[in-house]
Amino acid sequence: MVDIATRVWNHKWKIDPIVRSLIDTDFYKLLMCQSVFRNKRDTRVTFSLINRSTHIPLAELIDEGELREQLDHIRSLSLSRGESTWLRGNTFYGKRQMFRSDFMEWFENLRLPAYHLERKGDQFELTFEGSWPEVMLWEIPALAVLMELRGRAVLDQMDRFELQVLYARAMTRVWEKIEGLRDIPGLSIADFGTRRRHSYLWQDWCVQAMREGLGASFTGTSNCKIAMNRELEAIGTNAHELPMVYAALAEGDSALAQAPYDVLSDWHDEHEGNLRIILPDTFGTSGFLEKAPDWLAGWTGIRVDSGDPVQAAEDAIAWWRSRGEDPSKKRVIFSDGLDVEKIRSLHHQFSGRVQPSFGWGTLLTNDFRNLVPQDSLAPFSLVCKAIEANGRPTVKLSDNPNKAMGPASEIERYKRVFDVGAQRAQDVIV
Amino acid sequence: MVDIATRVWNHKWKIDPIVRSLIDTDFYKLLMCQSVFRNKRDTRVTFSLINRSTHIPLAELIDEGELREQLDHIRSLSLSRGESTWLRGNTFYGKRQMFRSDFMEWFENLRLPAYHLERKGDQFELTFEGSWPEVMLWEIPALAVLMELRGRAVLDQMDRFELQVLYARAMTRVWEKIEGLRDIPGLSIADFGTRRRHSYLWQDWCVQAMREGLGASFTGTSNCKIAMNRELEAIGTNAHELPMVYAALAEGDSALAQAPYDVLSDWHDEHEGNLRIILPDTFGTSGFLEKAPDWLAGWTGIRVDSGDPVQAAEDAIAWWRSRGEDPSKKRVIFSDGLDVEKIRSLHHQFSGRVQPSFGWGTLLTNDFRNLVPQDSLAPFSLVCKAIEANGRPTVKLSDNPNKAMGPASEIERYKRVFDVGAQRAQDVIV
Repeated sequence: MVDIATRVWNHKWKIDPIVRSLIDTDFYKLLMCQSVFRNKRDTRVTFSLINRSTHIPLAELIDEGELREQLDHIRSLSLSRGESTWLRGNTFYGKRQMFRSDFMEWFENLRLPAYHLERKGDQFELTFEGSWPEVMLWEIPALAVLMELRGRAVLDQMDRFELQVLYARAMTRVWEKIEGLRDIPGLSIADFGTRRRHSYLWQDWCVQAMREGLGASFTGTSNCKIAMNRELEAIGTNAHELPMVYAALAEGDSALAQAPYDVLSDWHDEHEGNLRIILPDTFGTSGFLEKAPDWLAGWTGIRVDSGDPVQAAEDAIAWWRSRGEDPSKKRVIFSDGLDVEKIRSLHHQFSGRVQPSFGWGTLLTNDFRNLVPQDSLAPFSLVCKAIEANGRPTVKLSDNPNKAMGPASEIERYKRVFDVGAQRAQDVIV
Repeated sequence: MVDIATRVWNHKWKIDPIVRSLIDTDFYKLLMCQSVFRNKRDTRVTFSLINRSTHIPLAELIDEGELREQLDHIRSLSLSRGESTWLRGNTFYGKRQMFRSDFMEWFENLRLPAYHLERKGDQFELTFEGSWPEVMLWEIPALAVLMELRGRAVLDQMDRFELQVLYARAMTRVWEKIEGLRDIPGLSIADFGTRRRHSYLWQDWCVQAMREGLGASFTGTSNCKIAMNRELEAIGTNAHELPMVYAALAEGDSALAQAPYDVLSDWHDEHEGNLRIILPDTFGTSGFLEKAPDWLAGWTGIRVDSGDPVQAAEDAIAWWRSRGEDPSKKRVIFSDGLDVEKIRSLHHQFSGRVQPSFGWGTLLTNDFRNLVPQDSLAPFSLVCKAIEANGRPTVKLSDNPNKAMGPASEIERYKRVFDVGAQRAQDVIV
């Protein structure tokens, strides 16, 4: 077992790069990448870092040179032979050869494209431009680098035993969370915490602690590298970037209205079973469900990633019923701002009525709140999103207006096209 | 830094002997051993393990075979070249060549004598017989072995992450204790926790944490091996066994009454400065001080190891004053059942009036209370004492009748000879 505190102290970070592999990323990125590679390979996109926690002055906390060093290191990475073998040979969701040969050949030759980095006031402007399947792979490593460099700046000032006690406290906290989940019958929970993790070593520790502490209730991790190293299931399906980019590419309002279903139609052709999970909130959940084609109601489940999770799950249940489906056979994956109490209450509320499961993110892999003075290791809300596709702005509405993004005029147009009424704003913690 | 949890988990103990060196013992044992070697070499003594916490069924918790294995291992130890060099060449309390050549030659050839082990009900009878300077060196390793084997039986049932979290919690607790001592101006504190420690690796961790956390307020450790490895001061002076054995050897009541002063007279000839510390409670502090010769009042200080520490320190202050000494120049070493609150309040109460210092034992190196179910890692009150000298029983009265030992008739005789009146019983925690 890695002694994280000592590693942190000894190495002063020089020999521990933040991202150490092209598959140190979320599994759904690779699934989506293959889909994009097949269906929209030539789309030009721009991804941009967005710090929703504007009170965190990233450019003051993080040295630009160190940031460049880490980003350059990521650009030097390519798929290793063992990683390629694992992707080609492993069973994902019970299926062999999930990744097709043409995609794997492309991936084996991939290096991530150039980045654009500039300081703007106390924030960084960090953008990535190029072909969609290449640029999209920057999202997770870019977030992990920013999140961790901000932490390293704090850790670097700490002494050896202070560090060991910091990690001791954080370990105790994670373990107590795990103990708080142990007695839930039929719990199904996975690690979704790569992007805003404290560090790779820490995520790896959390994942292993989950495995020991929760046994079969722990279903796997979204992190491919950790899934490979620890022989766990890689977990994930798809994300907002697909409908966002498809929508941006749509010509006219009726094509726009159809875009989210086009995405899932492409997905339907490629995937079955547990990979057929609807993410309905990109442009508002209720309108999306109302207008959805019947074949979508036959999908395996739904992922709830914004808004009031209880309301979202109730809406899904009502929708399935209205389409003649049995909600108790449907999976509902909660993945927004989870922590023990929310997991417990959602499980309690929906177990039996649906098949609830949980994608536990930042408060699993980065709950360093209140462990150091000024709370300077607490996670914050950082995202890296597609902001443009073939020169057109992208939009996300979400079920929480605090998570909306895009130019104001486009947001208005999308709200009209997708018939989004009043929304309830909710704090975005992480 | 050693990852203790992993070491515990990986090795399943086979390659981590509990006692790994003849100097993995308290420094005062070696000082006393040299004194005994010089003054009472041929005395035959019996030391015996005494479990004051009779509710802990040691013989049920500890496998006799494992116990023999550890004790046999200790009998195989001899002083290494590096250890001998350190004892011969190091400066102790500012003095070079503290250990004389004849003693060192004897020590270099020493193997610990045989032990006698028998199960009696749910307890072990463990005794050591032979010449005093040899047998006395069994005390600390024997205690450490019993204390740790009882812990290992519990740890052996724990999984990898459970263990890591156990140590994380224990580390956090020690660190919080250290933080609770940091702001005390002029604090002077040493580790006295070898005998009832959780383990060697754990004591070593605690000592290093004390050094980082307390800086110059941490004056050193009683453990010679750790002092040597970590380049710290070895701390200690003398203990009850000297007056207990001298008293047992005394012919008649008047020789008995004189025995405690004979001990210190021999010590006075050998040592000066910080090594001239009176331990007055063996047969009751107040009678001891009252009848003490004037030259004893000139000693550097006193160690308070039983009874009410405030009362004991006040008695010492009054005594010094009555002998024309300035108490503010005297050292008072508190070493009985210390933890943060007691240390803080004693320091606050006596700083300036005397020079207080603290020998922090079991609740530094073995505070695993309430960390596992049934509290089965909590320390308990185990001692290993001289019970006979040249065929005569030894007696200890102490300032706490719960710490008294010896045959009832002898206890009565000693109480009469040393004029001990009513005593207040206090719980013995560790």
